Amino acid sequence: MSAPLKVGIAGLGTVGAAVKRMLDARRDALAGRCGRAVDVVAVTARTKSKQRDAELVRCRWVDDPVALARDPEIDVFVELIGGEGDPAKAAMEAALAAGKSVVTANKALLARHGAALAALAEQHNAALNFEASVGAAIPIVKTLRDSQRGSAIERVYGILNGTCNYILTRMERERLSFEVCLKEAQRLGYAEADPSFDIEGFDSAQKLAILASLAFGTRVDQDAVHVEGISSITLADLDAADELGYRVKLLGVAVRTDTGIEQRVHPTMVPKDSSIAQVMGVTNAITVDAAEIDPITLVGPGAGGMATASAVVSDIADIARGVRSAPFGRPAADLAVSEKAPMQRHEGGYYIRLLARDRPGTAATIATRLAEQNISMESIVQRHRGVRPQGGDRPGGAPVPVILITYATTEDAVRTALAAVEADGVIAETPQLIRIEKD
Amino acid sequence: MSAPLKVGIAGLGTVGAAVKRMLDARRDALAGRCGRAVDVVAVTARTKSKQRDAELVRCRWVDDPVALARDPEIDVFVELIGGEGDPAKAAMEAALAAGKSVVTANKALLARHGAALAALAEQHNAALNFEASVGAAIPIVKTLRDSQRGSAIERVYGILNGTCNYILTRMERERLSFEVCLKEAQRLGYAEADPSFDIEGFDSAQKLAILASLAFGTRVDQDAVHVEGISSITLADLDAADELGYRVKLLGVAVRTDTGIEQRVHPTMVPKDSSIAQVMGVTNAITVDAAEIDPITLVGPGAGGMATASAVVSDIADIARGVRSAPFGRPAADLAVSEKAPMQRHEGGYYIRLLARDRPGTAATIATRLAEQNISMESIVQRHRGVRPQGGDRPGGAPVPVILITYATTEDAVRTALAAVEADGVIAETPQLIRIEKD
Repeated sequence: MSAPLKVGIAGLGTVGAAVKRMLDARRDALAGRCGRAVDVVAVTARTKSKQRDAELVRCRWVDDPVALARDPEIDVFVELIGGEGDPAKAAMEAALAAGKSVVTANKALLARHGAALAALAEQHNAALNFEASVGAAIPIVKTLRDSQRGSAIERVYGILNGTCNYILTRMERERLSFEVCLKEAQRLGYAEADPSFDIEGFDSAQKLAILASLAFGTRVDQDAVHVEGISSITLADLDAADELGYRVKLLGVAVRTDTGIEQRVHPTMVPKDSSIAQVMGVTNAITVDAAEIDPITLVGPGAGGMATASAVVSDIADIARGVRSAPFGRPAADLAVSEKAPMQRHEGGYYIRLLARDRPGTAATIATRLAEQNISMESIVQRHRGVRPQGGDRPGGAPVPVILITYATTEDAVRTALAAVEADGVIAETPQLIRIEKD
Repeated sequence: MSAPLKVGIAGLGTVGAAVKRMLDARRDALAGRCGRAVDVVAVTARTKSKQRDAELVRCRWVDDPVALARDPEIDVFVELIGGEGDPAKAAMEAALAAGKSVVTANKALLARHGAALAALAEQHNAALNFEASVGAAIPIVKTLRDSQRGSAIERVYGILNGTCNYILTRMERERLSFEVCLKEAQRLGYAEADPSFDIEGFDSAQKLAILASLAFGTRVDQDAVHVEGISSITLADLDAADELGYRVKLLGVAVRTDTGIEQRVHPTMVPKDSSIAQVMGVTNAITVDAAEIDPITLVGPGAGGMATASAVVSDIADIARGVRSAPFGRPAADLAVSEKAPMQRHEGGYYIRLLARDRPGTAATIATRLAEQNISMESIVQRHRGVRPQGGDRPGGAPVPVILITYATTEDAVRTALAAVEADGVIAETPQLIRIEKD
C-alpha cells in the first residue's frame, strides 16, 4: 500500500467539519477502496478561538489559508472558504502553483475564474476537482466531465437552487404568496437573511455556467448567463400553469443553438408529467440531453453539510486512487470561448399573463399586435374575475386577466408585440412572461 | 499524443453496429478528450454473410470470437455477444487472460461469473468495464463503483426493466389487462416473443445482483435474489394502490439488514409522490440511499441501441484515458461472500387483497389470524362488488374483495397468517400479496 495522501482543509464550517469527520470515521474503508489511506494533517479557519469539537483540532492548526495551501506536508488542498475573491482565490492559486491538487465546493470562484484555474492546474500537473460545487452529492460534474458519449450533448438543464424550489413548492401546495413562503424558508434555514443571491437566480447562474462549460467544452462565462429570479411569480401564474398542464420551476438551461451556446436562468413552465416537474422541495435535479438518446435525469439533495461533504470526500478519494481528469473534461487550451447566443433570438413557447382593460377592441388590439410578429397561439384563457359589474360588457369594467400560450416564437417577437400592446394602452399592468421548456 | 487504442468488437447487432458507428463518427472528438484516438481494427459476428453496412466491415473480419479476443493487434475486446455461456464467456476469459481490457454489456455473464471474471482481470492487470450492463446510458455502475462516499450505502433500488414498467404504465393509464398490455409491448418490440425473462423478473434480478455487488462490496450472487414477476398483477391491485396513495412498480431492491444483504425483485407498492413512482413507460430509474444523506435518483432510458452504445463508448474512452477502477470497486480478494438475508425475515408493510366469502364470522376469522401473528393494520377497505343479492348479509353471497395494508411486519408472519386464513376456508382464492417500499 502506498504512503497516505495528506490533506489540508481550509474552512471548518458545516461542510469542512463534516469532511474532517467523514475522512476520520471511514479511514479504513477508504484505504481499502483507494489503495492508500487519506489523512487530514492540517486545518485552517477564520477564527481559531471558535469552540470546536476536539477531534477537529487534533491535527496541526495553520493560521493562514495561503500558508496552508503551500504547506510542504500536504498533497491536497481542500478549499471550503467560499467566495470568488481572496483568501479563497489566492489560496487555491498558491496550492495549484505549488503542484498540489485542489478539491473545492466553491461555485462562485469557479464560475468567475474556472478557465484560468484549470489552466494553472494543468500547467502544474495538479488535479482540480469540484463535484460539490453543483448539486452537492448528485454526481453531475463527473457525469458531464467524464462523459465520452458517442452523441454530443445538446442541452443541460435543471433545478439548481433548493431555496427557490422550496418556495415554489410551498406556494403551489399551500396556496401561499411568494412573500409568506420566503419568510418560511428563512425561518427554516433554507434561505439567508438577505435572500437575493438565491431568489434572484444568481446562485443558479453560477452553477449553470460550470455545467455549460463541462457539457460544451467552453470557457466558463458567468456573464453570458441571462438571469431572472422568482420574485415576480404569483399564485395566478401557478394556477394558470396547473390548468394548462404545466408547473413553474426556476430552471437553469444551457443549450446549443444555431447562434451559439444559450445560457439562461429564469422561471420556466415545464410539462407536469416531465421528470423535472416532479422535483419538489429543496431537492435539485439536472437533465442531460444528447443526440439520439433519451434524456438522463439526476435527482438528489442540492445542499446540506453531509451531502456536500460526501462529494468532497469522493473527489479526494479520486486523487488518492490516481484517477485524473482535466478539470473541464478537456485540455485547458481546447476550451472554446463560448459563443454567446443572444437572448433576443431565444426560440420557444411563451406563457403571457395580461390584465386587459375591459372595453371594446382590446382583444382585437392584442391579437393584431401578436399577429404582426407572426406569433401563433396554442391556447387563450380569458376569465372574468369575481362578479361582473352591472351592465355586462360596458366599457370601463374591471380589468380582466388573459392567459396566452404561444407556439414557438422568438424572445424578440414577444417583447416587441407586448411593448406595442402596452403602448396601445389596452392593458392595466406590465405583462407577466414565463418561458416554456419542453422535455 | 499516444498511439491509438485498438479495439475489437464481437457482436454486430443493434448495439455493436451503433458502437462501431459512434467510434467512427466521433473519432476526432474522442481523441481530443482522451489524448489518443480509438480505432476499431477488427470485428466478428455470428454470420459474416448477413448483409451489413459497408462501413461495418471496412475493418478486418475475424471468424471466431475467441480468436478475436486473443488477437495480438487489439488492446480492448468489446463483448456484445450476450448470454452467460460460450462463446461470450470463453472469449471474455481469453481476452482477460491475454491482458486485454474488456468492455461488455453482458449482464447475464456478469451476474453469474462476475467475481471470477473480476479476479481474472485483476490478475492480468486488465480493465473490466460494464456500465452498459445495467440501465444502459444511466451512469449507475460508475456512480456506485467510484462512490467513495463518507457514508456507507444502505440501499439501492429501482426500476430495472423497461418492459415491465411499460406494461404496468399502460395497465394503469388505459385500464387494460396485463395480457392485453403484454401483447402491445410485443407488437411494439418492447417485449420478446417469449417474454418470461422480462416479465418474471429475471432480467431485473441479474441487474440487481450486479448493483448489489457494487454497492456493498460483495461477490455477485444472482442466486441470492428472491424473484417474483408481474404477471399476477390485476387492475384491482392498481385501483386499490391508487386509492391508498401508492403505485405498483416492479422493483429490484438490495438492502443491508441486520441479517445480511437482502436482494429481491417483486411488484412493489411505492408512495405515489416518490421519485420512483413518477417513472413511466420504458424508462428505468435507480435510487441510492446512504446514511445521513438524502437519496439520489438516476433516471433514463434502460435500453436501446444508441443509449447502450453510448455507455459502451464511455467505458472504452475511460480505458483510452487511462482511468482504471477495480471492476466491482475494490480488490477481488476483498469482495465478501454475501451473507444472504433470508426472505422470511424481510420486514416491511404489506398490501393484501383477499376475496372473502360473504358469511358471518369471516371478518373475525381474518382479524384473529392476523392478530395471532402480531400484525397491525394501517388500513382496511372492504367494498361489496356490484349489486348485493337479496337478503343482505345472508351466508352464501358472492365473495367480497377486502384490501388490507399492514404496518411493518415480517414476511414469515404474513405468510403464516394467510396460510391459516386459507385453511379456515373463509376466502375464495389465493390472496394477492404486494410488498410496500418506503422512500
